[in-house]
Amino acid sequence: MDSNVVLSQVDYDVVGTRPVRPDGVDKVTGRAQYGADIRLMGLLHGTVVRSPHAHARIKSIDTSAAEAHPGVRAVVTGKDLPQDGSPEVQVPGWRYNRYKSSNILAGDKVLYEGHAVAAVAAIDPNTAEEAAALIKVEYEELPPVMTVRQAMEPDAPLLHDDLFTDELGETADKPSNVAQHFRFEMGDLAKGFAEADLIVEREFETASVHQGYIEPHSATALWNMDGRLNVWCCTQGPFSVRDDLSQLLALPVSHIKVTPMEIGGGFGGKIPVYLEPLAALLSKKSGAPVKLTMTRADVFQSSGPAPGSWMKIKVGVTKDGKVTACQASIAMEGGGYPGASVAPAVNCAFACYDYANGQVDGYDVVVNKAKTAAYRAPGAPQAAFAVETVMDEVCRKLNMDPLEFRLLNASKEGTRRVEGPIFARVGNVEVLEAAKGHDHYNTPLDKGPKDGKYRGRGVASGFWFNIGFQSSCTITVNSDGKVSLIEGSVDIGGTRASIAMQAAEVLGIPYEDVKPTVVDTDSIGYTALTGGSRVAFASGWAAIEAAEDVKRQMVERAAKIWDTSVDEVEYVDGGVSHRSDPELRMTFRELAGQFVEAMSQGGSIIGRASVDPRGAGNAFATHMVDVEVDPDTGKVDVLRYTAVQDAGKAIHPSYVEGQMQGGAVQGIGWALNEEYFFNDRGRMMNSSLLDYRMPTSLDLPMIDTVIVEVANPGHRFGARGVGEVPIVPPMAAVANAIHDAIGVRMDALPMSPGKILEARWKNGG
Amino acid sequence: MDSNVVLSQVDYDVVGTRPVRPDGVDKVTGRAQYGADIRLMGLLHGTVVRSPHAHARIKSIDTSAAEAHPGVRAVVTGKDLPQDGSPEVQVPGWRYNRYKSSNILAGDKVLYEGHAVAAVAAIDPNTAEEAAALIKVEYEELPPVMTVRQAMEPDAPLLHDDLFTDELGETADKPSNVAQHFRFEMGDLAKGFAEADLIVEREFETASVHQGYIEPHSATALWNMDGRLNVWCCTQGPFSVRDDLSQLLALPVSHIKVTPMEIGGGFGGKIPVYLEPLAALLSKKSGAPVKLTMTRADVFQSSGPAPGSWMKIKVGVTKDGKVTACQASIAMEGGGYPGASVAPAVNCAFACYDYANGQVDGYDVVVNKAKTAAYRAPGAPQAAFAVETVMDEVCRKLNMDPLEFRLLNASKEGTRRVEGPIFARVGNVEVLEAAKGHDHYNTPLDKGPKDGKYRGRGVASGFWFNIGFQSSCTITVNSDGKVSLIEGSVDIGGTRASIAMQAAEVLGIPYEDVKPTVVDTDSIGYTALTGGSRVAFASGWAAIEAAEDVKRQMVERAAKIWDTSVDEVEYVDGGVSHRSDPELRMTFRELAGQFVEAMSQGGSIIGRASVDPRGAGNAFATHMVDVEVDPDTGKVDVLRYTAVQDAGKAIHPSYVEGQMQGGAVQGIGWALNEEYFFNDRGRMMNSSLLDYRMPTSLDLPMIDTVIVEVANPGHRFGARGVGEVPIVPPMAAVANAIHDAIGVRMDALPMSPGKILEARWKNGG
Repeated sequence: MDSNVVLSQVDYDVVGTRPVRPDGVDKVTGRAQYGADIRLMGLLHGTVVRSPHAHARIKSIDTSAAEAHPGVRAVVTGKDLPQDGSPEVQVPGWRYNRYKSSNILAGDKVLYEGHAVAAVAAIDPNTAEEAAALIKVEYEELPPVMTVRQAMEPDAPLLHDDLFTDELGETADKPSNVAQHFRFEMGDLAKGFAEADLIVEREFETASVHQGYIEPHSATALWNMDGRLNVWCCTQGPFSVRDDLSQLLALPVSHIKVTPMEIGGGFGGKIPVYLEPLAALLSKKSGAPVKLTMTRADVFQSSGPAPGSWMKIKVGVTKDGKVTACQASIAMEGGGYPGASVAPAVNCAFACYDYANGQVDGYDVVVNKAKTAAYRAPGAPQAAFAVETVMDEVCRKLNMDPLEFRLLNASKEGTRRVEGPIFARVGNVEVLEAAKGHDHYNTPLDKGPKDGKYRGRGVASGFWFNIGFQSSCTITVNSDGKVSLIEGSVDIGGTRASIAMQAAEVLGIPYEDVKPTVVDTDSIGYTALTGGSRVAFASGWAAIEAAEDVKRQMVERAAKIWDTSVDEVEYVDGGVSHRSDPELRMTFRELAGQFVEAMSQGGSIIGRASVDPRGAGNAFATHMVDVEVDPDTGKVDVLRYTAVQDAGKAIHPSYVEGQMQGGAVQGIGWALNEEYFFNDRGRMMNSSLLDYRMPTSLDLPMIDTVIVEVANPGHRFGARGVGEVPIVPPMAAVANAIHDAIGVRMDALPMSPGKILEARWKNGG
Repeated sequence: MDSNVVLSQVDYDVVGTRPVRPDGVDKVTGRAQYGADIRLMGLLHGTVVRSPHAHARIKSIDTSAAEAHPGVRAVVTGKDLPQDGSPEVQVPGWRYNRYKSSNILAGDKVLYEGHAVAAVAAIDPNTAEEAAALIKVEYEELPPVMTVRQAMEPDAPLLHDDLFTDELGETADKPSNVAQHFRFEMGDLAKGFAEADLIVEREFETASVHQGYIEPHSATALWNMDGRLNVWCCTQGPFSVRDDLSQLLALPVSHIKVTPMEIGGGFGGKIPVYLEPLAALLSKKSGAPVKLTMTRADVFQSSGPAPGSWMKIKVGVTKDGKVTACQASIAMEGGGYPGASVAPAVNCAFACYDYANGQVDGYDVVVNKAKTAAYRAPGAPQAAFAVETVMDEVCRKLNMDPLEFRLLNASKEGTRRVEGPIFARVGNVEVLEAAKGHDHYNTPLDKGPKDGKYRGRGVASGFWFNIGFQSSCTITVNSDGKVSLIEGSVDIGGTRASIAMQAAEVLGIPYEDVKPTVVDTDSIGYTALTGGSRVAFASGWAAIEAAEDVKRQMVERAAKIWDTSVDEVEYVDGGVSHRSDPELRMTFRELAGQFVEAMSQGGSIIGRASVDPRGAGNAFATHMVDVEVDPDTGKVDVLRYTAVQDAGKAIHPSYVEGQMQGGAVQGIGWALNEEYFFNDRGRMMNSSLLDYRMPTSLDLPMIDTVIVEVANPGHRFGARGVGEVPIVPPMAAVANAIHDAIGVRMDALPMSPGKILEARWKNGG
């Protein structure tokens, strides 16, 4: 069953197998408890009053009628939250701390349709809705700014009069919509382009898209009479929710307990808090627990989509296909407040290539849309769409095979990157070689036309750096020889399994004997959010260290039982043995069983670790896709899709493949259909899953996967993060395939039927 | 406020103060979640069909009508549980494993009124009740055996035909109602009595009494499709529930997760499982979660009361008041199955005295009452009632002051005990001296008669050995310098506070900075039940060790930050300092704050410990009471009550005083009013809190307390268990006071008005 795993290096007992996930049964039988499933005694239900305008000044809010409405227990507005610059809401290192609270509840302005203005808690959801309708907000509408190009115009309306561009480290002297402009440089750009025989320069635009998780946000809070705040929510990071609430509500983190419920998808969009602080404030005012749940329209309009972007890419190559210079200017929407996607975008843009001269500029631009959030490798898919389309054009012009071209220029161990770091051992070359050797790439494609449709094949590569950060784990040994593993990482993609597997491997016990549980913030050490493709790596690392702590204590216990020194006891093959007396040996289970009978040997064994590991190995992926384009309608069908990716060592290959497939599918949706439609007043016209067109299984072929395993030297089992890089190549791969089919270069996402027809017409097709 | 604490030895920063308990707010505001407060999606409600007979053979059970009843989801009978001798239900070391499951669901016999025969789960409680009424059980009624004297008669009806007395280590050859007869001996009993100038020998009886906790038992179970069992219940020992369910249901302990809810009183009665296995079986059959909650009548009839007893005490003394020989025969009810109270009863009987020649015999006897359970110092109060009444008679006859007599004969460090062990440093003498010097003892009592009533004063002493056993604790350090403390001990008497205080003391941080949480069995290492007066001692010990683990890591972290060796860093005064550089110092909070900013220093810090400490210091108490007796009605009023007790070091004096007051009050109820009334068919006639007369605040004076502190050498802060010994002296103290008032020696409990009148008449009063 692992026939598609290549370059596997080491055989492990548990790592690399495909056991069933511990949460599987609960999820398929409907027992799993998601965000909205928490029910508390005396629970109140809340709703949020949101701005109908994309840009407006709030002249007044009158909540008196709502407060007087029968069954209403609390109403809050921006005045209830420390606003704009209050010291309580300082995030270390963030220039625009003052914007943190006003995204939760608007201050004197609303900056996007759906911006929260007030919230109500009442005895039932209908009463809350009735009361919300009684809140009178008087607005002065302002002209909305909806794209980065428009926002960067000198005379553009300003969202904030206190936002000053950080221009290459210098603060500008007059406000603008550009929060930050930064640049990375390497080598001599002019010299690089001078050495080039061919230069391709293109501009691109991408639309706002949403992560499209199935479960809407839900948060329930109980602000207890003792000043302690309890929160239950669907989040990717219970500890980051705790940190955010601590800053927003000016409460010490230890006074806040966040219990993560199961999560019905996140992809980066369930990192920020939206409802949690509102539920907390409403609970504080009412003295009762309060639940808030978003509608689907709320999710689209008021949670954090991925940014739309404008990008200019310029690449120079010799006639032999060697890249001599790379330049990019990337401007990304922050949304109503400064964003965070453009830094990773420039970080990743040219990371698949080894070149000497480069310059990348990033611009973080505010527009009248919801504040953007992370979406799986944030920023990188947009950048790859632009860069990989340009590279494809280069290949066409040089008449080079696109994989040969990428192999010729592939970044590898020792390659210096434009933003500074040098690659350690990475799998870019191995991924490209696996793609080049794959049946898909070597099966000729009949390009048509057939029934009036044309076929084409495209390839593209992608990069994501992956992160480490803090993770904690405790492992307790039960008398039946099984262990409980407590961890703080919300499980989105099967990480209960991949973390438990690493503990089992270290302990030398079966996977089934490790029972992992994700617990609340009071019950485990600090654990950073589930994101950045960090969990299998960093929480896995914590599990490894906690298991080592268990092993040390098992050896001590055996030494005590055998009345010998610790040095005489060896932990080997999932058990202990005496180095000098081969008769003395106990399996893990036998030794654990001793805890009951020989209680004089001490208590049970608890292993613990909290780690902050460096060395998250970088991830590379190359995807190839065959499409069929109907030139008359502009409709594109995906016929065949293969994703190749370096997983380092795939801890649980099925869940790696699931990430690869999920990323590819989301990328296909982003490539072909998904986008926010805004009218000229900045209002979203398609805020439902009926109108916001995500691909369904009927739109897609099976996504074939090839796991390449180039061990990450920074991890005990060689694991690399796998969750994000698979969304990076698809848009470019599809664009390149469309070009291959109909000869049209697409420079904007999504490549919807209308856009394809327009491009054909512009192209004179 | 600590004016009544004497002999305090060491001043601590936190230990010995009286902070507010962390669970206080939740409990007074009604937020605390007790056993029945758990609500799950699709919850079914169950009820139990119980035997109306005290003793009967089950001829048949027909559940077909119940199963066919609309809304019924599952019915279980004894056939669904492994019964009588099945290997799955073996408890290590218990001779009568085969009886474990038949107390949960009867096999072929019912052995007490209320014995569970079947259980039903349905969509709501009423439907479950309707269905239960449709279950037809055909019984063949047998003569009930209701007292130990009756049960020990040679021709008594037998409860079990497979119960053979373990007679001083030899198994008898024909079945009987005596499960066990054991004996401890010391010195030469005949010689001891020969040396005596005065011998007093008396017989005593005590009635069955109940712990009288307010919260009825409740258990909810979800037997998941993956074979894992989740249980929520009010219990004193989530891990012992897990162990019991593992044995009863033949599931590995790691497949069972027990979440302890808050507990509305236990006193030993919430150690055994009753509903938990039934809820589990019903959930397994129905596929849904099932909740079962006892009625008050169920609690009385079907949970475990304290045993009724028969005791013979014989004491020899010289004319100078030196005890020369002590002998006791104590027979205690096991209930329908063998019990566990008689061993501690004989263990404690003469433990307050230093004497050379002794013999104690214990008999564990089955009768047709609910299987007995622990009740606060199980067995010791009955034994003390008998022994301390005899000692009082000795004092009267020798005309000695009862405290002088006890001081003369007091057991102390080095005293050998009849069952073997030698006392370490104990506080018996100090307690007696504190009592002797107390204002209460030195205030003359006007003995009356006044308004026809007589007054009297009594004293009595009591002993409880206290236990250690396994406890676990983890402590995680948050970036705000506060810590989360995770523990496995259900909090009955304020132990969240007393455990947190010990951690705070070790860490040198304020008590308020430690946030304790009691968690489920998956989230902490093995922790034995809350009982035996072990929690403040043993779980406190675990907290101390976990805090030491934190300190070690804080020192390591500081060494890393200061780029120095661990040896150069000292943990002192709640912070770290550099031994050679006085400038380098950080408070706990400052160092904890570094974890956020200097993430390269490592993860957060998790301390952990699982301990199994020896050295639980023994507890002694002496109580004195003034009563007023109405000789015409037999009614006794308690006028003044003072409890003196050695707490070792009182970790939280208020909660020690609370234990002393609670124990005294329960003892007064046991002394004067509480008893199970059975009719001649063995049915309980007073199974409600209206008819089962527990004292209310209107019946009681303020219970004065004196904490004596003779440090336990076996604990870091000198703590001894305090929860049980205060229930040991009251019955004897009250009996001795009644004698002082009206000259009548009471030889049976309760000393209710009727019994007092009978005793007066017998006495010729």
